[in-house]
Amino acid sequence: MPHIDFKNDLPGIRSAMAFSPKTSKPLNELAEILLRSDEGLSRAERELIATYVSYLNDCFYCHNSHGAIACIYLNGDHDLVEQVRRDYRYADVSGKLKALLNIAGKVQQSGKAVTKEDIQHAKEAGATDKDIHDTVLIAAAFCMFNRYVDGLATTAPEDMSSYPLRAKQIVETGYGSHIYTTQQPA
Amino acid sequence: MPHIDFKNDLPGIRSAMAFSPKTSKPLNELAEILLRSDEGLSRAERELIATYVSYLNDCFYCHNSHGAIACIYLNGDHDLVEQVRRDYRYADVSGKLKALLNIAGKVQQSGKAVTKEDIQHAKEAGATDKDIHDTVLIAAAFCMFNRYVDGLATTAPEDMSSYPLRAKQIVETGYGSHIYTTQQPA
Repeated sequence: MPHIDFKNDLPGIRSAMAFSPKTSKPLNELAEILLRSDEGLSRAERELIATYVSYLNDCFYCHNSHGAIACIYLNGDHDLVEQVRRDYRYADVSGKLKALLNIAGKVQQSGKAVTKEDIQHAKEAGATDKDIHDTVLIAAAFCMFNRYVDGLATTAPEDMSSYPLRAKQIVETGYGSHIYTTQQPA
Repeated sequence: MPHIDFKNDLPGIRSAMAFSPKTSKPLNELAEILLRSDEGLSRAERELIATYVSYLNDCFYCHNSHGAIACIYLNGDHDLVEQVRRDYRYADVSGKLKALLNIAGKVQQSGKAVTKEDIQHAKEAGATDKDIHDTVLIAAAFCMFNRYVDGLATTAPEDMSSYPLRAKQIVETGYGSHIYTTQQPA
């Protein structure tokens, strides 16, 4: 049961966003830019970073929501998403993405955990300054989103079939202000 | 030295924001709404929550920046800000704010660390659902801002006199898009 009365029955972050439309606007805009930009990192890479950090933060709603979105960008390769969650070092992804997931995992612990060596390794694997910037900000942003979702004890759908449905909508239409309306699944 | 080339000499989060104007827009809008709303919590209370979480995250730039802003709202009571940083339980603040700082400290660890008892205690001390929502989101947002600042190894001004100057500007004009221009101190 949620810690406060959201006055709606929406799941996860959407219940909090509907409760507070003023803050949901910049939160959705941030997600839209960070996760759907086509400059540098691909949308699949961005969603995998979000999924991985949410998994480390043990945020069931977020890692399943973003894992389902990543899965669509990866043509349904659920096993790859699952491998990134469990241990990305053995996943079939680029050396660059592995180096960036390492940085994301450090950011999940603390910004100060990121070392010069982590950055150097990512650059040697082909990461640009923008790739590193975006990785750090995606990881940091999910340390916010995950805490927002779980700090208010929002409810996560137990019906796992709802996540791919909702993911399809996000892929098709983005993280718009419609995210907190009652018109959509999951 | 910063982990990436920001192509500017701005301090703290402003260097990263100038590097990435597209993401800085929603980040500033979020700060403006969360920290300068006059609904429910006061601006001083909001900045104290931000300062406390930034201090727990050991983010020198953020806890000094927001501590200086809180100090202005508290008519220069630097000792009170310092007491909230060190141990708010002995600070001369309301029982409601103490209960909300307790929740903020839990969110800094993990959203899941917040208990029903923490929420109940805050409600009994007079906190509304909106106060609790805003506290959780401020604490969560500073878990993002702190990681953004330190995960990229931005530079913090060592000249402590720059923080009150910059704080005065924020108090007077807000967290606007001007935050990342080169026209201002600190």
